[in-house]
Amino acid sequence: MGLSDLPLEHNESQQDVRLREIMRLLKNTQLFSHLEPGELADFMDAAKTRQAEKGKILYLQNEPSEFFYVIRSGWVKLFRETLDGEEAVIDILTTGHVFGETSVFEDGLHSCNAQVVEDAQLIVLPSSLLREKTQVSHTFALNMLAAMSHHRRHSIEELEHLTVQSAPQRIGCFLLRLCNSQEEGEVTLHLPYDKTLIAARLGMKPETFSRALTRLRQESDIDVKGATVSIPDIQRLVGYTCNACSNAYPCKDL
Amino acid sequence: MGLSDLPLEHNESQQDVRLREIMRLLKNTQLFSHLEPGELADFMDAAKTRQAEKGKILYLQNEPSEFFYVIRSGWVKLFRETLDGEEAVIDILTTGHVFGETSVFEDGLHSCNAQVVEDAQLIVLPSSLLREKTQVSHTFALNMLAAMSHHRRHSIEELEHLTVQSAPQRIGCFLLRLCNSQEEGEVTLHLPYDKTLIAARLGMKPETFSRALTRLRQESDIDVKGATVSIPDIQRLVGYTCNACSNAYPCKDL
Repeated sequence: MGLSDLPLEHNESQQDVRLREIMRLLKNTQLFSHLEPGELADFMDAAKTRQAEKGKILYLQNEPSEFFYVIRSGWVKLFRETLDGEEAVIDILTTGHVFGETSVFEDGLHSCNAQVVEDAQLIVLPSSLLREKTQVSHTFALNMLAAMSHHRRHSIEELEHLTVQSAPQRIGCFLLRLCNSQEEGEVTLHLPYDKTLIAARLGMKPETFSRALTRLRQESDIDVKGATVSIPDIQRLVGYTCNACSNAYPCKDL
Repeated sequence: MGLSDLPLEHNESQQDVRLREIMRLLKNTQLFSHLEPGELADFMDAAKTRQAEKGKILYLQNEPSEFFYVIRSGWVKLFRETLDGEEAVIDILTTGHVFGETSVFEDGLHSCNAQVVEDAQLIVLPSSLLREKTQVSHTFALNMLAAMSHHRRHSIEELEHLTVQSAPQRIGCFLLRLCNSQEEGEVTLHLPYDKTLIAARLGMKPETFSRALTRLRQESDIDVKGATVSIPDIQRLVGYTCNACSNAYPCKDL
């Protein structure tokens, strides 16, 4: 895979802390929740931690799947590339997200490319173990189903937005997902990764994104300075964005 | 549900024929394949056949799921409606397709609306049985996983196309999916449903669809008369369409 191992932590108590953190991270995912301790232990035993730099390709579409991943920190982009070289971003993931796991049901082949877009710490797990556990453990198969169903709902949401939302509304939706849904009135937030990537994530060319952001500024009075976004009135942004969606704000898919 | 029962077929042999046809249809779906005869019999016992006319709404988004469906004939549209009334078509399905089944993992709620768009014969099955079987039968849970994974791949494909293909290329892709992938050279085919619906299926306004079709005619020399499409050279259409996709033609998702 060309990924460099993290330096080994010889101090046992540090390693214990790391193991506890990894176990907590896994248990918080849909995939590894409610497992028997022995089943979770099998995954913990097989897990390796890796750090991967921005730009690193983790796997390619249609490549046989050797590993799947859980993100400890950083950002990873799932994308596809057309025959004439254009890129379609399928998703951008961060801490706690699992990826590459669905290959087990795709003839063992990855269905898109995965690339690190902000320096990441990853938990790397063998796909063969995933395949085996799904075959023998009914609980684990049900977890896979719950996780897959969540992915599916997310994809349907994306399809809906690409079909009916305007470009400024798609940016508005992206910003609202970054807000804590409890917040009202004025909100300040920070963009999680750079604007070129946000544009790609929303299926826009950089120039479309730039025009759409100008329009969104006019419509909802938001202010964007570098990576900082000030939203003076969240309800105004909701009014402009969420009527072009089948879910009311705060949406349960937030 | 407001669906009318099919007239009962009192002639036993006719009913046998119908049962055999239903069983064959179910066995050919990913969901019901490789089941123990007893497991399949439970579904057969609970199955009802219904005929539903064009326009009939089968269920609504966020409605508790009582039934899921297998299509014997006709066409069904899955769609979402935004708060201000715009429609996003998620998929259009026909013979052999299963729908409404994923609600079991969505807190028992349907994730979109379903409407009959060409008079349909449906097999109606109770969602409670699906829930029960998934919980008790590991084989059935694995079938659900395979089916869900297929849906997911299909959604990723759609997201890719909506992001990188132009409107004429999306129409080209739709036509190529209707071709038998073995065919070469000249092909004549018939549009399965009306153009307004095809436009909606491809996420286009009717006027965009119309302009895109004119462009596709110029680029690939196809001819469209009513519902009949003549493709004089399939390779030319492939050249125009499939370079804007991550899969080469004939693609395995066809």
